[in-house]
Amino acid sequence: MASVKPIPYEEASDEVRAVYDDIMATRGVDWINAFWQHLAHHPATLKRTWASLKEIMAPGELDPLTKELIYIAVSVTNGCEYCIASHTASARKAGLSEAGLGELMAVIGMANETNALVSGLRVPVDVRFEPKER
Amino acid sequence: MASVKPIPYEEASDEVRAVYDDIMATRGVDWINAFWQHLAHHPATLKRTWASLKEIMAPGELDPLTKELIYIAVSVTNGCEYCIASHTASARKAGLSEAGLGELMAVIGMANETNALVSGLRVPVDVRFEPKER
Amino acid sequence: MASVKPIPYEEASDEVRAVYDDIMATRGVDWINAFWQHLAHHPATLKRTWASLKEIMAPGELDPLTKELIYIAVSVTNGCEYCIASHTASARKAGLSEAGLGELMAVIGMANETNALVSGLRVPVDVRFEPKER
Amino acid sequence: MASVKPIPYEEASDEVRAVYDDIMATRGVDWINAFWQHLAHHPATLKRTWASLKEIMAPGELDPLTKELIYIAVSVTNGCEYCIASHTASARKAGLSEAGLGELMAVIGMANETNALVSGLRVPVDVRFEPKER
Amino acid sequence: MASVKPIPYEEASDEVRAVYDDIMATRGVDWINAFWQHLAHHPATLKRTWASLKEIMAPGELDPLTKELIYIAVSVTNGCEYCIASHTASARKAGLSEAGLGELMAVIGMANETNALVSGLRVPVDVRFEPKER
Amino acid sequence: MASVKPIPYEEASDEVRAVYDDIMATRGVDWINAFWQHLAHHPATLKRTWASLKEIMAPGELDPLTKELIYIAVSVTNGCEYCIASHTASARKAGLSEAGLGELMAVIGMANETNALVSGLRVPVDVRFEPKER
Repeated sequence: MASVKPIPYEEASDEVRAVYDDIMATRGVDWINAFWQHLAHHPATLKRTWASLKEIMAPGELDPLTKELIYIAVSVTNGCEYCIASHTASARKAGLSEAGLGELMAVIGMANETNALVSGLRVPVDVRFEPKER
Repeated sequence: MASVKPIPYEEASDEVRAVYDDIMATRGVDWINAFWQHLAHHPATLKRTWASLKEIMAPGELDPLTKELIYIAVSVTNGCEYCIASHTASARKAGLSEAGLGELMAVIGMANETNALVSGLRVPVDVRFEPKER
Repeated sequence: MASVKPIPYEEASDEVRAVYDDIMATRGVDWINAFWQHLAHHPATLKRTWASLKEIMAPGELDPLTKELIYIAVSVTNGCEYCIASHTASARKAGLSEAGLGELMAVIGMANETNALVSGLRVPVDVRFEPKER
Repeated sequence: MASVKPIPYEEASDEVRAVYDDIMATRGVDWINAFWQHLAHHPATLKRTWASLKEIMAPGELDPLTKELIYIAVSVTNGCEYCIASHTASARKAGLSEAGLGELMAVIGMANETNALVSGLRVPVDVRFEPKER
Repeated sequence: MASVKPIPYEEASDEVRAVYDDIMATRGVDWINAFWQHLAHHPATLKRTWASLKEIMAPGELDPLTKELIYIAVSVTNGCEYCIASHTASARKAGLSEAGLGELMAVIGMANETNALVSGLRVPVDVRFEPKER
Repeated sequence: MASVKPIPYEEASDEVRAVYDDIMATRGVDWINAFWQHLAHHPATLKRTWASLKEIMAPGELDPLTKELIYIAVSVTNGCEYCIASHTASARKAGLSEAGLGELMAVIGMANETNALVSGLRVPVDVRFEPKER
């Protein structure tokens, strides 16, 4: 059970509905996933979080699928099941193949392994890795 | 200071040198970064880790730059400074622009934020996010 | 399913019951929540953990509600669902409003985001933040 | 060394200076700490992060000192040294006593301990902790 | 629900069956646990992960039970429920007593607590803890 | 620099000195490492933490070296450098060989990798792993 009561569209205030409408329009979907319905418990957080996410996940130097893969990498490392499920669904929708998902998981697993090895051995940063132009 | 003594090329055994040689040949570089020099303290781990990393980071469904970005996302979330420094250097070498680095950090930051919101609100996974073909 | 069998009051040893009795008396409740029933599997850990928690969560420089909010912040960051549920219940009991819960989550989310940005950019600590009186 | 070059006020664009000016005015300080100078590498992230932080950390249901304590709890749990240093400085400025800092750390430590115990024992959430009004 | 479809023995390719057969033979069991069935979605990851695990968990300087305890310590700290359940089962099979499990959890809890205290107080490493022979 | 001022023996109160004396007597050493000197900033936390640690790390079902290895596993996973350095020193003193340290790191690395794979694939717990006697 969640910590707060989700707010479905029909029970939402005009302020919340405006955010829901923008989410559906931006994503081309006709439903609001649970994350936003729970955030709606605190409208200021709902509005700010959506505005930030919309700006950050828009195509830019990095394409939308790459951004989804980055999102999944963070979510797996944090063990956030909801986030893994939702962004894996988004990544598949954005074109991630099953083999690509396998590679993604392999990279995430390997990174967590070598992060631990580096941490455990207390490896100092190589000077050559530092940005030069200073 | 590190937990173990790093092993430079000139002091390495033949077994360790063979790994060092393959690292340099595969990457087209003429030096061995500190991570491998510290892993060499336990040759079995050096060999296995390099074999795994070489296989996982090779081009496949995901291109090498994308894999570096995923690596950075994990490393930032774990707070592994060495890993952030080394993979940011690799990502720049693989073509990541400064604006791309900014977007990468924005996505990583946002993902950590929404992971926390989801966790705190205990949001249940939407049925629509579950893979269908079962 | 849990890793160990919980021990309800009626099946508890005198040693465990003494802790249970103190928990109920201290908190003014008439039941023992699952955390303690599972810890009772190892009585030494039950006793020590309760003694520590009782001392730490007592009113002091920080009031009990503030301590609950700190507890939730840690639990959300670690993704500990049980801990989030139990301390959110305690915080509500101690007077946390629904709007306050929303603000709490917003701060926790933001902190996780900026922690990641700081980690990713490897920001050095400003000298001005260091305590002066040394 | 940081991953990107910090941008001091005198080298900043008008867009960045506007954010810097608002930070100094809002906080009543005459300098820009390193976090913002590094975020300025990507102006969109600087602007959005400051706008969010300003909104979230403003007095509301929770007072500013309480928000700083929550921030520290997250930062300690993530092991973000910069964040611990900067928010501990802010908390002291907002009135946190040395004994209060000691209590804060005790609560954070205890929460990390019981989070681990709960996770290791796989304790199921008590029904009584679930919000009732559903 | 899982992110990918598990592959039971009867539906597995020859390549996957070879790994499954080796897992069962090495462990002296007649079934394949869910971890491997889900990894089989990406055969290269299945093969590499099993080869690594088989090598790492074999008796060496550290005995198999000690290795299981280390595995549990990591899994609890990461909050990985599956991993806690599977390695706790393995540790019990390898001889861990119920009192030993209690002690294990106590150490893991304490370590998470003091890690947080060290992080929060920003304690510098004592020179005497550094390895000498350099 | 640390968040609080460490308190050396000669500047310590009688209350703090009593703890310091017990630490040195219990461990057979003639100095107080930085962790305790920083905890001494808040004597109640110093006393409680030492009492807990002394009880938990004493020989029991698990021997002292095994407990040190578990401590290191948690500390590496949390990326706590001080804790890694101090407990690696303790483990070496308790007899950990260099090859044993290599194996320890290999297990910790592997556990972090498979934790991530399990989390990313959302693997459900096998019924056979659940304790039976319920």
